[in-house]
Amino acid sequence: MMTRNEAADFLRGADHILILSHQYPDGDTLGSATALCRGLQKMGKHAMIRCSDSIVPKYQYLFSGVKEEEFTPESIVAVDIADLQLIGEPNRSLYGDKIDLCIDHHPSNSDYAKRTCLDAKSAATCEIIFDLLNLLGVEIDSVIADSLYTGITTDTGCFKYINVTPATYRIAADLVEKGADGHRINRVMFDTKSRARIGMERCVMDTIRYFYDNRVAVIKITNEMIKSTGATEGDIEGLASIPRAIEGVMIGVTIREKSDGGYKISLRAQPPQNASEICAVFGGGGHAGAAGCTFNTSMEEAESQMLAEIGKHL
Amino acid sequence: MMTRNEAADFLRGADHILILSHQYPDGDTLGSATALCRGLQKMGKHAMIRCSDSIVPKYQYLFSGVKEEEFTPESIVAVDIADLQLIGEPNRSLYGDKIDLCIDHHPSNSDYAKRTCLDAKSAATCEIIFDLLNLLGVEIDSVIADSLYTGITTDTGCFKYINVTPATYRIAADLVEKGADGHRINRVMFDTKSRARIGMERCVMDTIRYFYDNRVAVIKITNEMIKSTGATEGDIEGLASIPRAIEGVMIGVTIREKSDGGYKISLRAQPPQNASEICAVFGGGGHAGAAGCTFNTSMEEAESQMLAEIGKHL
Ligand SMILES: [Mn+2]
Ligand SMILES: [Mn+2]
Repeated sequence: MMTRNEAADFLRGADHILILSHQYPDGDTLGSATALCRGLQKMGKHAMIRCSDSIVPKYQYLFSGVKEEEFTPESIVAVDIADLQLIGEPNRSLYGDKIDLCIDHHPSNSDYAKRTCLDAKSAATCEIIFDLLNLLGVEIDSVIADSLYTGITTDTGCFKYINVTPATYRIAADLVEKGADGHRINRVMFDTKSRARIGMERCVMDTIRYFYDNRVAVIKITNEMIKSTGATEGDIEGLASIPRAIEGVMIGVTIREKSDGGYKISLRAQPPQNASEICAVFGGGGHAGAAGCTFNTSMEEAESQMLAEIGKHL
Repeated sequence: MMTRNEAADFLRGADHILILSHQYPDGDTLGSATALCRGLQKMGKHAMIRCSDSIVPKYQYLFSGVKEEEFTPESIVAVDIADLQLIGEPNRSLYGDKIDLCIDHHPSNSDYAKRTCLDAKSAATCEIIFDLLNLLGVEIDSVIADSLYTGITTDTGCFKYINVTPATYRIAADLVEKGADGHRINRVMFDTKSRARIGMERCVMDTIRYFYDNRVAVIKITNEMIKSTGATEGDIEGLASIPRAIEGVMIGVTIREKSDGGYKISLRAQPPQNASEICAVFGGGGHAGAAGCTFNTSMEEAESQMLAEIGKHL
C-alpha cells in the first residue's frame, strides 16, 4: 500500500505511461483515466488510455482534453480497477502482470499491482486523482474538472449514496470553481433515459403488485419485454430500485426471467428488514439493503416461495 | 437591503421572535425556519414558527429540535418568502404589514418587509441562514445541520440545478461534518414515490408518443388518470419533465386536461430550442427551458396546433 505522496512521487518519475480503465467502463474509471492522462500530458509526459471495452457515446466528452498518443508503455497505471479480472480482454492478457501502480477506492481491491494507492474512504477514485494532480502541481483546468466531477457524481449517485463524505463535497466545490459543468454532467448522467429504458419502465410498472398491506411490492422483468423494447443491460440496470422506492414499501422484489431459463430475484430492503438474510434461505447473498438469489422453477413458484419467506420476516 | 452582518445584528438584538414560512411549505422555507428557530432558542431567546399551511409528514423531522413556545411576538422574521401573497392566510392578514426582517434568495423578492436580507446568488435561503447562525456564534448541531441540508438539497434538486455554486457544496460539506444525514434526507426527498405517483407515471408512460424523428415526445395527463390513481397535485408535479428526459428529445410536451375544461400544455426544451417563444404564439410564457400555455379546444386540436408550431422551430 502506498500513500498519495508516494504515488505522486512514482508518477513524477515516470514517463510513457499507459493508463488502464476497467471493462464495462463507468464514469469513475473514465473520469480518473482522462483526468490523469491530461494531467500527465500537461506535465510534458507521454500518456495514453486503454480500455478493453468501447466507450459509450455519453462518456465521449471526457476525452475532449486528451491528446491521442501511441507509444510503447514504460509504466502502466490501473485506475478504479479492483481486480485483474475486471481489466477485461485483451488488456488483461497484455498488461495484467505488468501493472506498476493501481489507484483505487474499492475495499475489495485484490492487491494485484506492484504498487497500490488505495483509499476506501474515498467515494470515487476521482477524489484520489484530484489529490494526486494537486500534489503533482498540475493546474486543474475545466476539462480535467469535468472528468473528475463526472467520476464523483456517478459513483455517488449525484451525492446520494452513503459513501459521500465532507471531502466529496469540498472537492466538488473546487471542481465547479475550476469550471466543471456539474449541471450539464448531472443532466446527461441522471436525467436522460433511452427510449428503450422508458419502454422497460412502462412494462415493469404495468406489473407492480402489492402484498402484506403494501409493505412489499413486486415487479417482473421478462425476456419478452427486453425483446420488444430493444433494451440493453444498461437499460435494465436500476429497475430493481423501483419497487423499494414506493412509499411504505419495506421490501421491493424484482423477478427477472433469465435468458437461459429460471429466474433471478433481486431484493431491496429498508432497515430493519434484511435482504441478505432472506436471499440466503434460497442460497443467494448480498447486503442488508440489496441481495439476490436464483430459482430454477416457474415464475409463479419463485414468486410464491419468496413471498412466503418474506412473510416470516415482516 | 441588508447585509448578512446587519441581519445578524438585528437578530442579536431581538427576542420573542416569530418566524414565518411560506404557504405550500417546501424544504427550504421549513429548513430555514427550523434551523433559525433552534439557533435562536440555543442563544436563550424565545422563538416560534408559524406557517399558514399544515406540514406534510415527510417534513415533520425538521421540527424535532425545535422547542414549542407560545408568546406575543415582538419581532417577525419571514424566511424564503418572496412576496406577501406567498405568506398565505391567516398569517398574511395577521402579520403581513409587520414583517421586521425578510431573509430570502428569490431575485423576484418584492421588498415588502421593513428590512430585507436578500442574496439571489444563494441556491437556497438555508445557505444564508447557515451564514447568519455562524455570525451569531450558534454552534450548528446535527439537528440544525439536518434542517439546513434539507433546504439546500431540495432547492437544488440534489445538487442538480443550475443554481448550485461552490459555496453550496462547501456548506453541504460543513453540514455533513456537523452530523447532517444527507443520505437519509436525499432518500426521503428524492427516492420515495407515493403509490398514486407510481400510478400516474404508469398512466402517463402509456401515452408517450414521438414526433419529428423522435425529437419531440408528447405525454398526456387526464382528469380520469388523476381520479383513478387518487393523485394529488404533489403527485403530478414534475411529470412534465418525463418526455424531455428521453434521449434525443429536444422538446417535451405535456398536455394536461384542466378540471374546468380546456387543456394546459407544458413545454420543456433543450437548447437551442426555446419553449417560451413557442408558447408565446399561443399567449403563454415562461423560460427558454420551461414554458406553458392554455387551449380552450379539444385535446386533439390543442396537440395538433402545438405540434404544427413546434415543427416551424425544429
Ligand atoms: Mn469507482
Ligand atoms: Mn428557497
